Amino acid sequence: MPQNQENWHGTEKFLEEVVKILLDYIREENQRSTKILHFHHPAEMEKLIDLSIPDQPRTLRELLQDCQEVLQLGVRTGHPRFFNQISCGLDLVSMAGEWLTATANTNMFTYEIAPVFILMEKEVSQKMIELIGWQGGDAIFAPGGAISNLYAMNAARHARFPRCKPLGQGDIPTLCAFASEDSHYSIKGAAAIMGIGTDNCLNIPTDPAGRMIPEALEQCIIKSKRDGLEPFFVCATAGTTVYGAWDPIPQIADICDRHNLWLHVDAAWGGGLLLSPEHRYKLCGIERANSVTWNAHKLMGALLQCSTCFIRQEGLLFQTNQMSADYLFQQDKPYDVSFDTGDKAMQCGRHNDIFKLWLMWRSKGMKGYRRQINRLMDLTAYFVARIRETEGYELVVDPPEFLNICFWYIPPSLRCMDKAERNARLEKIAPKIKAKMMERGTTMVGYQPDKQRPNFFRMIISNQAITREDLDFLIKEIALIGSEL
Amino acid sequence: MPQNQENWHGTEKFLEEVVKILLDYIREENQRSTKILHFHHPAEMEKLIDLSIPDQPRTLRELLQDCQEVLQLGVRTGHPRFFNQISCGLDLVSMAGEWLTATANTNMFTYEIAPVFILMEKEVSQKMIELIGWQGGDAIFAPGGAISNLYAMNAARHARFPRCKPLGQGDIPTLCAFASEDSHYSIKGAAAIMGIGTDNCLNIPTDPAGRMIPEALEQCIIKSKRDGLEPFFVCATAGTTVYGAWDPIPQIADICDRHNLWLHVDAAWGGGLLLSPEHRYKLCGIERANSVTWNAHKLMGALLQCSTCFIRQEGLLFQTNQMSADYLFQQDKPYDVSFDTGDKAMQCGRHNDIFKLWLMWRSKGMKGYRRQINRLMDLTAYFVARIRETEGYELVVDPPEFLNICFWYIPPSLRCMDKAERNARLEKIAPKIKAKMMERGTTMVGYQPDKQRPNFFRMIISNQAITREDLDFLIKEIALIGSEL
Repeated sequence: MPQNQENWHGTEKFLEEVVKILLDYIREENQRSTKILHFHHPAEMEKLIDLSIPDQPRTLRELLQDCQEVLQLGVRTGHPRFFNQISCGLDLVSMAGEWLTATANTNMFTYEIAPVFILMEKEVSQKMIELIGWQGGDAIFAPGGAISNLYAMNAARHARFPRCKPLGQGDIPTLCAFASEDSHYSIKGAAAIMGIGTDNCLNIPTDPAGRMIPEALEQCIIKSKRDGLEPFFVCATAGTTVYGAWDPIPQIADICDRHNLWLHVDAAWGGGLLLSPEHRYKLCGIERANSVTWNAHKLMGALLQCSTCFIRQEGLLFQTNQMSADYLFQQDKPYDVSFDTGDKAMQCGRHNDIFKLWLMWRSKGMKGYRRQINRLMDLTAYFVARIRETEGYELVVDPPEFLNICFWYIPPSLRCMDKAERNARLEKIAPKIKAKMMERGTTMVGYQPDKQRPNFFRMIISNQAITREDLDFLIKEIALIGSEL
Repeated sequence: MPQNQENWHGTEKFLEEVVKILLDYIREENQRSTKILHFHHPAEMEKLIDLSIPDQPRTLRELLQDCQEVLQLGVRTGHPRFFNQISCGLDLVSMAGEWLTATANTNMFTYEIAPVFILMEKEVSQKMIELIGWQGGDAIFAPGGAISNLYAMNAARHARFPRCKPLGQGDIPTLCAFASEDSHYSIKGAAAIMGIGTDNCLNIPTDPAGRMIPEALEQCIIKSKRDGLEPFFVCATAGTTVYGAWDPIPQIADICDRHNLWLHVDAAWGGGLLLSPEHRYKLCGIERANSVTWNAHKLMGALLQCSTCFIRQEGLLFQTNQMSADYLFQQDKPYDVSFDTGDKAMQCGRHNDIFKLWLMWRSKGMKGYRRQINRLMDLTAYFVARIRETEGYELVVDPPEFLNICFWYIPPSLRCMDKAERNARLEKIAPKIKAKMMERGTTMVGYQPDKQRPNFFRMIISNQAITREDLDFLIKEIALIGSEL
């Protein structure tokens, strides 16, 4: 698109039209009567929209149509009745922040080209480090929790065996890591990428609520040593993906102390609770961690992506990741180059994920966040109470410990069966309800099986736009769809 | 921010004000007289703007001030005289795409919640695969070229030693990889993360223009085998970071064939040239690669981040990265779950990087891109000719092979010195000019030393807004600043 002066008027008009389309979309999204999606199978969808790359340029008018079509065929993840993911809702200040980020379009690797944003990362990281409870520490914003967890495991290995960086795993003992069987799969993923191996990422059993059993951890550590492995890394999860469970950090930290192991707390989902003085006790002990993953794009509601990996030992991120690329990160610049972050990152170019978080946090202040997060916890209590009292519903974990509520809906036809037969049938119920729900487009909630438990729904209450009426609606809607199954 | 109906008017007004600020910023940025930056040292900058997280919420009015201040204190990377990075310029259609992406705020891991965007990734990847020249293949959009290179190296290891995924590096021979000494540092970075070790990522010498010497590669492979290492991965760079050099892919591919090695082409920077029938011969042989990194946020001008890793062997991305997380990627959904991408990715949550690229590509069409890229190559030829004829300028590599032009400015006081003394003094010239340039704020261009060569400027012509006058301006500006040194 021409950007010179003569054509500025047309360009400006185009951008204003795009904004109009977006504002209409947001307004509709916040009306409960708007469908969350119009479901189409992939083959159908391909017929509904032309996605091809043309030979000739399309006009601005046609591009506006493209924008409109794409939005109409998409899923409204910011709809107050979309409960499908841990990252829900559309905070409009965060969104405005992302618009500005796009316009400023810079790269977070040097102070030279991103001076304000680099200082902003420092300031916000510092605030988050205080909330974790450390006296100091370092941080890097990463593209999602999986990469943050990879940063943490890599830093842990470097702290213990710095010679692995030049010489590789072959030169050091066979490492092993520990995470609960309910931990996020990216811990195993990091072990695979790092050449440690998924079999050397040992699963620690959990209790029925999904919390790691500390005694089992210690036994596993002792056994791994006997088997000739070299334990180095323990991941405690603060807010598991399915149940929202809290691994008992203080006990796990004691075990790490006894065996001299790196303690990582994966608080990708639960970290936001540190903003609530009323609820932060659930993360008690997190200050003893050597590293923490915390995704502001989850509970805090920043737009995707916004994740941070915190490392307590200052300088370690730099030592682990720097590749001495002086051709990009010159050391003879006129300013203090310790502000450049390029050498701390695995990435070279790095997206600006800070501004949307900073602006949103300023818009709420500490008090606003406290209120928002406490309100979500209150809504969860309300929903749990409603589930308990409504016929046909059954909680998988009672009481839930966080904003995940896992439950079955048991259709009348199954209610009198014996448990074994019921469970066999129940396995198919949630997928059927979900499929129907997507056809109706009225609401969305995820499901999954777990261990011996048949498919159950996992409700997430993290969108600040949710009201009690939305929760009542979900309960009615599932019963309506499911009662005839 | 309240998003309910009653407050919608205030919210809408706020967003419209933000857009007004952004449009003003863009208009200013495109005026040559606007300063690119007002340079401040970090300590000064911290005094100029309050970055703290407040206890109380800030008003919408105050947030607008925040936005304005941040933009005023930043660096205008889209300014036509900002030549500092490989990613330059601000394509306004791509920017509009990113605004919509923010508003749609979804996650690329399942078709369920990103149906159109998933199909869009498929369509655009397919187009890019055709341009590479493969019959088929797979792709994943990744947060930057460094992560794309990590994807490629990890896939290469998995293809050769699938047991490394469960068992780790300890169970397989000591791997080694090869990349030229001018390759991007993220290749070494990937070797470090993967537990291969940077010392096992062997540097292949380059010729004076920065191209890998194939004979040296083959000797190095043979020697590494003699040393008991297991070669598995060769990276050829298509458009190196500093010189924009093209490694000779056909010869390198022959060597890979002879030794049964994975050929990765890092075309992060050079990939865009595939869009020009006139210039794509420089990537001749890329179709023989097993994997390719191609960053649309570089030459193609998409907003940061937009990078893709292509893998020729279908199914391999999935086999390498899937962790069987059925609790997130259910297999009993009502649609064809082969469209879900979660199991192909290292990341779990994945930002939507496709829409801004798709919309921009539609706006230009194949013809528009061809024209745009050919024009940048023509501008480079013009700039090179001007440098050659202007007193005090000297090309580091003549002729440059791509859009990087590396040159020295030699102040009059140095011109009559003998080479050794001159070079010693020259080392300090570029940093001094750069510092002054940043103070003046009129233009920006990067510099670095390389091997025995003293600090030189690396000019990048990738912003479509650049005109010949902007190039003339740079030549005059450097001479003006540098003539008195």
